[in-house]
Amino acid sequence: MRMPTLRLLSSTVRRSLLVPATKSGSTKSANISISAPLTPQHYPQHRQLRFHHCAVSMLPRIPFTSDFFFRQLFDTESCTYTYLLADLNTKEAIIIDPVLEQAKRDAQLIHDLGFTLKYAVNTHMHADHITGSGWLKQLIPGSLSVISTASGAKADIKIKEGDKVQFGRHALESFATPGHTNGCMTYVIPEQGCVFTGDTVLIRGCGRTDFQEGNSQSLYDNVHSKIFTLPDNYRIYPAHDYKGQLESSIWEEKTYNPRLTKSLEEFVNIMENLNLPYPKKIDKSLPANRECGLYDIPKE
Amino acid sequence: MRMPTLRLLSSTVRRSLLVPATKSGSTKSANISISAPLTPQHYPQHRQLRFHHCAVSMLPRIPFTSDFFFRQLFDTESCTYTYLLADLNTKEAIIIDPVLEQAKRDAQLIHDLGFTLKYAVNTHMHADHITGSGWLKQLIPGSLSVISTASGAKADIKIKEGDKVQFGRHALESFATPGHTNGCMTYVIPEQGCVFTGDTVLIRGCGRTDFQEGNSQSLYDNVHSKIFTLPDNYRIYPAHDYKGQLESSIWEEKTYNPRLTKSLEEFVNIMENLNLPYPKKIDKSLPANRECGLYDIPKE
Repeated sequence: MRMPTLRLLSSTVRRSLLVPATKSGSTKSANISISAPLTPQHYPQHRQLRFHHCAVSMLPRIPFTSDFFFRQLFDTESCTYTYLLADLNTKEAIIIDPVLEQAKRDAQLIHDLGFTLKYAVNTHMHADHITGSGWLKQLIPGSLSVISTASGAKADIKIKEGDKVQFGRHALESFATPGHTNGCMTYVIPEQGCVFTGDTVLIRGCGRTDFQEGNSQSLYDNVHSKIFTLPDNYRIYPAHDYKGQLESSIWEEKTYNPRLTKSLEEFVNIMENLNLPYPKKIDKSLPANRECGLYDIPKE
Repeated sequence: MRMPTLRLLSSTVRRSLLVPATKSGSTKSANISISAPLTPQHYPQHRQLRFHHCAVSMLPRIPFTSDFFFRQLFDTESCTYTYLLADLNTKEAIIIDPVLEQAKRDAQLIHDLGFTLKYAVNTHMHADHITGSGWLKQLIPGSLSVISTASGAKADIKIKEGDKVQFGRHALESFATPGHTNGCMTYVIPEQGCVFTGDTVLIRGCGRTDFQEGNSQSLYDNVHSKIFTLPDNYRIYPAHDYKGQLESSIWEEKTYNPRLTKSLEEFVNIMENLNLPYPKKIDKSLPANRECGLYDIPKE
């Protein structure tokens, strides 16, 4: 049994416009298209059909298409997941949440695979590690950094909800999901059935909300209105995990997330009483990440 | 562009027989079928077609089918990858290379997903960590441990080249690839385009061959005759990585593996001069793994 592919969806929903946003204020012609805000309700419900003899739990997988490259990478120190995605026809690639210390590894891989890196995209301004965007831009001339306008960080391209980050015929669709930080974005690729949640939804957890404009009510509302409304079998790829879990799904987190399955009131109470230590790298990470990581690139 | 699926292949090639091998010598009726030895040349070459406008490098992805569940897991201490695979229709699952310290995490996940664990399968008798097979058997009654006969380790089911490890309509096809250890197996699922190489092929590396019946010539020969002859776009899922790389492909390792792309003579020379330290956990791991990990299960 194979679910129908949804190649047509992207082109139907997409409204191609060039993006007018750069750090210098000039208009840069980048293949990031701006569209009217999407809601997850746009995504086809037939993908939520269950196998007939499957009473509960896991749903049919939405396979990656054969022209879509996906590679998850890990930074052991910060437990960060980085994602290299590409169009296997055009060889255009993007990288989500690269880590400074892994920039050379990532650049080597991109080179080995024959890809052209278009964008280094951050889900938010990280507090626990320095982004690899800045160094990757130096290692791979021509690539551009991307982050949300609301993050307050510098980048070549600033995005907001509804914008699309295009690579070949594929694109990330952007949703603003503030809560962990003010500038948190969640990226969805409907055709591939996957969502990159940054620190907004972690596997059986979520990002802390006790610094950097954190707001637990906002996080809860955004998760429930913009992420948990996605089809149950969309795979969740978060920015971190500390227990060796690499991915999850909408259904799993709607069912088992020990925080986000609670009522708003209970959730806010949980988040207010986590008593977490001060992030050990925050004083170094935030100033660097405000400058797209360029602040602290190793001298060689 | 989508490559044709190959559902028919498994049923055509498979010769269903029940496996007559258990630790007690009695015949256990398990859904592991024994077939005449397969060679990778059985796998269809049309999967190796490239995109016409793709001169070199990455090939079209072979998508996982929608009824195939795949979840990679990580043990931070030993840098081991564990794989949970399942048939989403029958809910039958297997786990490859579980780690003792992660057995409760893995059992919880299997429970959450509503799967029935049939087999805990090891690629070989590990020297760097204790297998989770034994503890998983206690946590999930009814599951059975599987390892190669050649490993010399105890398990409920012993396999050899050509045997199939069945879960629902899916199956691992087993290839004997001794070299890192005498009992190393490589498991292939042709329809899903993936191969689980254990320590035989690592990402840009390979398992050491200086202890536990290691033999670098044997490793080299087996990689070149049984793994590198698989279609270029099969994804490689190894037992370990120490640099945060999660997967590779046949094409990548045939092209970039710094050891296995060399001549046999150069390879043997490289392996003889690695000067690696004595594995720190070997004295604890091997006695435990000979007993399927049951030797050292935490008391609770």
